[in-house]
Amino acid sequence: MTRLGAVAAVLLTSLVSGATAAAPDPVEEIREEALHATRALELVRSLTMEVGPRSAGSDGDRRAVAWAVERLAASGFDRVWTEPVTVPHWVRGQASAEIVAPFPQSLVVTALGGSVGTPEAGLEAEVVRFETVDDLEAAPADAVRGKIVFLDGRMERRRDGSGYGETVPNRGRGPAAGSEKGALAVVIRSVGTGTHRFPHTGGTRFAEGVQRIPAAALAIPDADILAHQLEMGKPVRLRVRLTSRFLADAESANVLAEIQGSERPGEIVLLACHLDSWDLGTGAIDDAAGCATVVEAARIAGRHRPRRTIRVLLAANEEHGLSGARAYAAAHEEEIAGHVLAFEADFGAGAVWAYASAVNPAAEGFLAASQAALAPLGIEYAGTEARGGADLIPLRQALVPLADLAQDGTYYFDYHHTADDTFDKVDPEALAQNVAAHAVLAWIAAHTDDELRPAPPREDG
Amino acid sequence: MTRLGAVAAVLLTSLVSGATAAAPDPVEEIREEALHATRALELVRSLTMEVGPRSAGSDGDRRAVAWAVERLAASGFDRVWTEPVTVPHWVRGQASAEIVAPFPQSLVVTALGGSVGTPEAGLEAEVVRFETVDDLEAAPADAVRGKIVFLDGRMERRRDGSGYGETVPNRGRGPAAGSEKGALAVVIRSVGTGTHRFPHTGGTRFAEGVQRIPAAALAIPDADILAHQLEMGKPVRLRVRLTSRFLADAESANVLAEIQGSERPGEIVLLACHLDSWDLGTGAIDDAAGCATVVEAARIAGRHRPRRTIRVLLAANEEHGLSGARAYAAAHEEEIAGHVLAFEADFGAGAVWAYASAVNPAAEGFLAASQAALAPLGIEYAGTEARGGADLIPLRQALVPLADLAQDGTYYFDYHHTADDTFDKVDPEALAQNVAAHAVLAWIAAHTDDELRPAPPREDG
Repeated sequence: MTRLGAVAAVLLTSLVSGATAAAPDPVEEIREEALHATRALELVRSLTMEVGPRSAGSDGDRRAVAWAVERLAASGFDRVWTEPVTVPHWVRGQASAEIVAPFPQSLVVTALGGSVGTPEAGLEAEVVRFETVDDLEAAPADAVRGKIVFLDGRMERRRDGSGYGETVPNRGRGPAAGSEKGALAVVIRSVGTGTHRFPHTGGTRFAEGVQRIPAAALAIPDADILAHQLEMGKPVRLRVRLTSRFLADAESANVLAEIQGSERPGEIVLLACHLDSWDLGTGAIDDAAGCATVVEAARIAGRHRPRRTIRVLLAANEEHGLSGARAYAAAHEEEIAGHVLAFEADFGAGAVWAYASAVNPAAEGFLAASQAALAPLGIEYAGTEARGGADLIPLRQALVPLADLAQDGTYYFDYHHTADDTFDKVDPEALAQNVAAHAVLAWIAAHTDDELRPAPPREDG
Repeated sequence: MTRLGAVAAVLLTSLVSGATAAAPDPVEEIREEALHATRALELVRSLTMEVGPRSAGSDGDRRAVAWAVERLAASGFDRVWTEPVTVPHWVRGQASAEIVAPFPQSLVVTALGGSVGTPEAGLEAEVVRFETVDDLEAAPADAVRGKIVFLDGRMERRRDGSGYGETVPNRGRGPAAGSEKGALAVVIRSVGTGTHRFPHTGGTRFAEGVQRIPAAALAIPDADILAHQLEMGKPVRLRVRLTSRFLADAESANVLAEIQGSERPGEIVLLACHLDSWDLGTGAIDDAAGCATVVEAARIAGRHRPRRTIRVLLAANEEHGLSGARAYAAAHEEEIAGHVLAFEADFGAGAVWAYASAVNPAAEGFLAASQAALAPLGIEYAGTEARGGADLIPLRQALVPLADLAQDGTYYFDYHHTADDTFDKVDPEALAQNVAAHAVLAWIAAHTDDELRPAPPREDG
């Protein structure tokens, strides 16, 4: 998950032609090397096929940390290390849902991350449907109490993925909102695009003091079946059974590696991704592709004597509450002022199509050089509203300069948080283009004479 | 499943332009009505969403028969009836597979139809890989005994679906071949196209006297994982657990309906489909779409005073052994000589692109008229090698004249026999084109002055 909605808001005129001459020397070499390298693809293959699912706290999580340390150690970094992160350990268990009446049928369903289980025998109740969590919140409690709420909002497919932000409140807030009105459980139409029969999981939140109730996502064809039966006008009864639960918190780790700057080692260009994945798929596009991208980008850029330090952060537990991001910010509090630019690859495996920045507006040389370096990759400049990925939220709050390399998200949400997030969904050419974009941006940020700090203040925090 | 491989073998020059004038009167009206009707789509929606999965012997099977009788009775047929069919009742149960070593990972798997279960705790063994069942059959028994065989052949995507026929022997014969060499179990790369993470089920056969062993299909991304680990050269151990089993045979039914011919009621044009489906999906493209096509085609054609009888057969249990087809042939033995043409819709929901016939070569008027009627639908004539669908095998053996309306199968095998075979996969325009093609062909066959019998002898039986 990232926050890229703003990226597409305004596409400014590209400065490419006028700025080409300002691109520093090894940029073309870096870009070409990245476009022709296959190591990123091999990293994705290896992480997904030799480790596989790696949700926070699981065996796979531990194996992924060991895998990352080993791979980074073999990639020419000056330093590779881990930092401990305590993570929640939620287990999905099994899930089933069946329409009991009027027309019995089993539905494909999975628990939302953080859901409690149902009673052992499941629970059964009449279904009440709402389009959005706002509609649910506006409904009288009498209409909801004792029922199973069905949130039926449909996500729209768009390149910038902005349909996700519009629909995901059904998942994030919906179950808590149902609980507050006395619902027994909440099921949602999966927040995703396409119609393949996979439920899309993802985190749901209950504020302190709100009773946790079972919460699950229906695959989109199954939401269609439930909606069809509801449209027929007779009461629809659903039985849901979930065995999900929290175990004790577990130890995981952020994995870090860096190439030290030749002139200003205390100034850091940070490239982030997250190493964990949801458990249903093998986490290929979310986020093995992102990790492979930043590791390879840093490795390739790092071979050209960067003046500043280029660091990669493979964050623990992005999916289930950003523990790794918070742990990084806490562990590096004194160093945060030394971060000159941070960016994250966590939006699938589509090609980068837009570049946004949020740096000191006086850094004109950097802005021109970075745009010129990205333009040959088909990347437009999209303005100064960069927001960073989810794992950069604490750095964003600390006014670290940010960049977004916005990936094409047209098909990302067909696979996002499903069992179908597997290696074959990664397009080798798009991945190589990602590596190239991240590598040139990292090198230019590590080389520029400009001062990228401070980032402009952000009105929305 | 149908047998259309031969359809594409030779595309003869279309006779369209010369034959247009021969098209009988109401053909254009029938075609236009069918192209604009939406009842077929509503039938698919209703069968998939209000009945759902309906594998032979299941509750869904019984509900599907009741549904079909009710819908046909409301569709203007002169007669609607059922005929009893005894069907095997196999239940899938649960399936799991995990690579135990060298790199542990759970794989997505399902039982093949007719598989026995494993011991309660599952079974674990080293994996031996072959590309094809032929390779397995050629291997020394020492290489197989006590192991789990992995048949790793990949199906090719083609419009005519011929990649299926090339790969499906791994599924049909592979488990028995493994058993004969002492394998503990056989897992196959799913016989299907695309890479969505659904295992493709389907029947497997054990000859009398061959010990049944557990047999399962891996989703394609999971076969990739297993193949990758095998390529790394260390022994790969797999644990498989299946709880599939046969229950006692059950009673199902063929559902039939007809519009009686105004002049030659004893001469029958038969349109077939199958009412059963595999249990994983809701059987939308296999074969609710086919049933909706033939029911609507017969209804629309039947409103134009056909001289011969137009009959639809919604066959029981195609998927698990063609019980319905055999029961129809047996129950109608004396009537078979009165069947002037039979054709089946059972190749998904893609548009018809080719028409083949296997009728008396002297029926030139019929051939010209049918080609002329189909040409405006974008359907080419593909020669005289029509084979009919699976449910027509007994009629084919009895030399009933046949036609094939070959549907575009480019994407059929992405969904075929998976959980992803749901209503949303049906394209309304393609379905309407199917209805139109079947309706005009049925009407012309019911009207022609030509004698369509006997079909030419078929060399391959």
